[in-house]
Amino acid sequence: MRMYDIIMKKRNGFPLTKEEIYYFVDGFTNGTIPDYQASALLMAIYFQHMNYEETLNLTMAMADSGEHLDLSGISGIKADKHSTGGVGDKTTLVLAPMVAAVGVKTAKMSGRGLGHTGGTIDKLESFPGFSTTLSQEQFVKNVNDIGLAVTGQTGNITPADKKIYALRDVTGTVDNISLIASSIMSKKLAAGADVIVLDVKTGNGAFMKNIEDATELAKTLVDIGNGAGKKTYAVISEMNEPLGYAIGNSLEVIEAIDTLKGNGPRDLYNLCIELGSLMVAASDQNISLEQAKQILKKTIEDGSAYRKFKEFIESQGGNPSDVDNCHDLIKVNQVLDIKSFQSGYIAGIQTENIGNAVMMLGGGRQKKGDSIDHSVGVIIKKKVGEQVKEGESLATVYINNTDNLDTALDLIKSSFEFSEDIIKEPELIKGIIS
Amino acid sequence: MRMYDIIMKKRNGFPLTKEEIYYFVDGFTNGTIPDYQASALLMAIYFQHMNYEETLNLTMAMADSGEHLDLSGISGIKADKHSTGGVGDKTTLVLAPMVAAVGVKTAKMSGRGLGHTGGTIDKLESFPGFSTTLSQEQFVKNVNDIGLAVTGQTGNITPADKKIYALRDVTGTVDNISLIASSIMSKKLAAGADVIVLDVKTGNGAFMKNIEDATELAKTLVDIGNGAGKKTYAVISEMNEPLGYAIGNSLEVIEAIDTLKGNGPRDLYNLCIELGSLMVAASDQNISLEQAKQILKKTIEDGSAYRKFKEFIESQGGNPSDVDNCHDLIKVNQVLDIKSFQSGYIAGIQTENIGNAVMMLGGGRQKKGDSIDHSVGVIIKKKVGEQVKEGESLATVYINNTDNLDTALDLIKSSFEFSEDIIKEPELIKGIIS
Repeated sequence: MRMYDIIMKKRNGFPLTKEEIYYFVDGFTNGTIPDYQASALLMAIYFQHMNYEETLNLTMAMADSGEHLDLSGISGIKADKHSTGGVGDKTTLVLAPMVAAVGVKTAKMSGRGLGHTGGTIDKLESFPGFSTTLSQEQFVKNVNDIGLAVTGQTGNITPADKKIYALRDVTGTVDNISLIASSIMSKKLAAGADVIVLDVKTGNGAFMKNIEDATELAKTLVDIGNGAGKKTYAVISEMNEPLGYAIGNSLEVIEAIDTLKGNGPRDLYNLCIELGSLMVAASDQNISLEQAKQILKKTIEDGSAYRKFKEFIESQGGNPSDVDNCHDLIKVNQVLDIKSFQSGYIAGIQTENIGNAVMMLGGGRQKKGDSIDHSVGVIIKKKVGEQVKEGESLATVYINNTDNLDTALDLIKSSFEFSEDIIKEPELIKGIIS
Repeated sequence: MRMYDIIMKKRNGFPLTKEEIYYFVDGFTNGTIPDYQASALLMAIYFQHMNYEETLNLTMAMADSGEHLDLSGISGIKADKHSTGGVGDKTTLVLAPMVAAVGVKTAKMSGRGLGHTGGTIDKLESFPGFSTTLSQEQFVKNVNDIGLAVTGQTGNITPADKKIYALRDVTGTVDNISLIASSIMSKKLAAGADVIVLDVKTGNGAFMKNIEDATELAKTLVDIGNGAGKKTYAVISEMNEPLGYAIGNSLEVIEAIDTLKGNGPRDLYNLCIELGSLMVAASDQNISLEQAKQILKKTIEDGSAYRKFKEFIESQGGNPSDVDNCHDLIKVNQVLDIKSFQSGYIAGIQTENIGNAVMMLGGGRQKKGDSIDHSVGVIIKKKVGEQVKEGESLATVYINNTDNLDTALDLIKSSFEFSEDIIKEPELIKGIIS
């Protein structure tokens, strides 16, 4: 087999066999196939696409390129949730304790934030002492004991994905459905859960800007998951405004805790119920989706989800009293209000810009490895459809480093779009794919 | 400017500016742009194509990537001929002395053979002592003195083309008209001639298998040449059988000498008259094409072309008596006749296979840098349309190394296709583009 022939075959529009796909993935991962041939193939895939069979094989080949997380020591059904990335998305922090409180286990491998999107690992590190580098034994023990553990990506999970993604990133071959889907699903498959629920974001703060692309991606992800023998579901959710009001690591943790206490933003709460009910119903065939929603709502009402969150923070080295006193996590020099210069209805929020503003304030990373300030961020005060009067606050900004402050403030300010007419509140859940 | 943006622009179907094309070519040549980005762009070009403006700019950028041959020391019009490569194509050996005999100067930079096609430099090195590594001074002096010199590609002519071609060769991005045309024309432009005549081959022994592709390439080449301020013409000529009868370096030299003496194959002679008349007429606006043909025919009849060839061989270190005794150039252990097992008319000749057979005998290169045996090769005895009787010779094979002999003989034998019906002799000249 020769890489040259594989490139030519795909370039000329023919589907690649499983053997050819493994040959490419293994060869590129171990360095016998040079990056210039890999990038030529990726560009050919961009133009000629991959069919379902090829996409599944690519996903499996990438999942098989490194270790699989060994969850065999965990009893019962393991469910995993993955978001394609948004602004203010603190869903995992609320959702995982909720489902754990009803016995669905979450052994989650999570990532750090990059660019305008945040990462669960970063948010959790708002708690002093909280560790996201658990040993395999500790990880399995925690999930067995309390039903929930979160770890950073361990060493040798899907090395092919890391290498291929890095190449796509600099060769204009990121936005292809098969390549996106295989990158996401290879990590999920290697992470070993039985049930996978995907939150595919769509809108101006998401990777998929329009609903058609998001739906196609969701369908592809679900097909791959099911093809690999996992119960897989996708929720398509809107990201044309931040989820909830808080953007910034500790600010989002506080909002998640408020939600666990029953005082959270409606959109965040609803999304957690929606995603969680799929996880619960998929884990137990005797529970309907509607029943699952009721069960999950009860975990908020009776405080069991909140207690589970405290157990979880403690189990990974945090102090549970920090959860009770979470407002003390914020340590900033300055808090500024951005006031509206006009009256009207909020017609839209340039969500990616808000994410980028928080990054500029130091709350996110421009490039991998950058350090971040957990305390800084933004609380928006108005969401799409809300009425604003001139002089009212649009957002509150939490600041330490002032290097890019003016640019960040301008960015936040200009992200709000106004209308004189009444604007309908956006619909959060755009569809469910199973 | 960023290479990433250039890739994305082309991938998305937009034409690149002159500045962007130079940025890519210069950056890739000097190593600041990595090969994985270059190959991604080349694949994007394969799918999205380049318009005339882009192709011209790419050609100029590649021509400007290294030195231009300095022909300013040569008085008068310099004409150059280039063939896209075929089997048995010894045109330059006949053509250059013919036009030199009537005062049109040829300062030719020529290449070596690769795969099934031969190269002029290899053929000339059949003459003991003949040097193809002339100093710039000697090269200019020879052209001034006798009107003709041939040199191998010198060090730093179009380094961008060398690098880009090597990358295309292993990334499935060879067969794109703009990339092919810019590769050919960048070398021609850097070689400094005033008149460029191109011989675009089409057929089963050529790079362009069908007439449509050959015509498109010919038009693109001529447009680039004219766009760069050179008088440029292209002849589209058939390569569905070897040109002439001889394939193999010294055998081709002998056939070229026979042609210069007026005893050559008709197709080779006609092609030389056709190409040569364009060179002569383009060099002197007072000479019509028809007049040019008559003048060139006379160089054969009066022996002036033959004498010019001897001068040329001597001027680059060969012995002119070797021209008179050219049959002594062949030094082989064995000469075999391939006999026909059937009677009929030759319907076709798998020309590329004949070229490959000669390569297997040692007369050509599988890869760059391989050494070759100048004496070995094939004389075909029948061309398309000729009648054959069972037992008659189809080809004579000149052999030294017998390692791949059986395969080579089978390949030659199976290259001849038969018909019971009369087959029309193929038309050599398919078109002229100006």
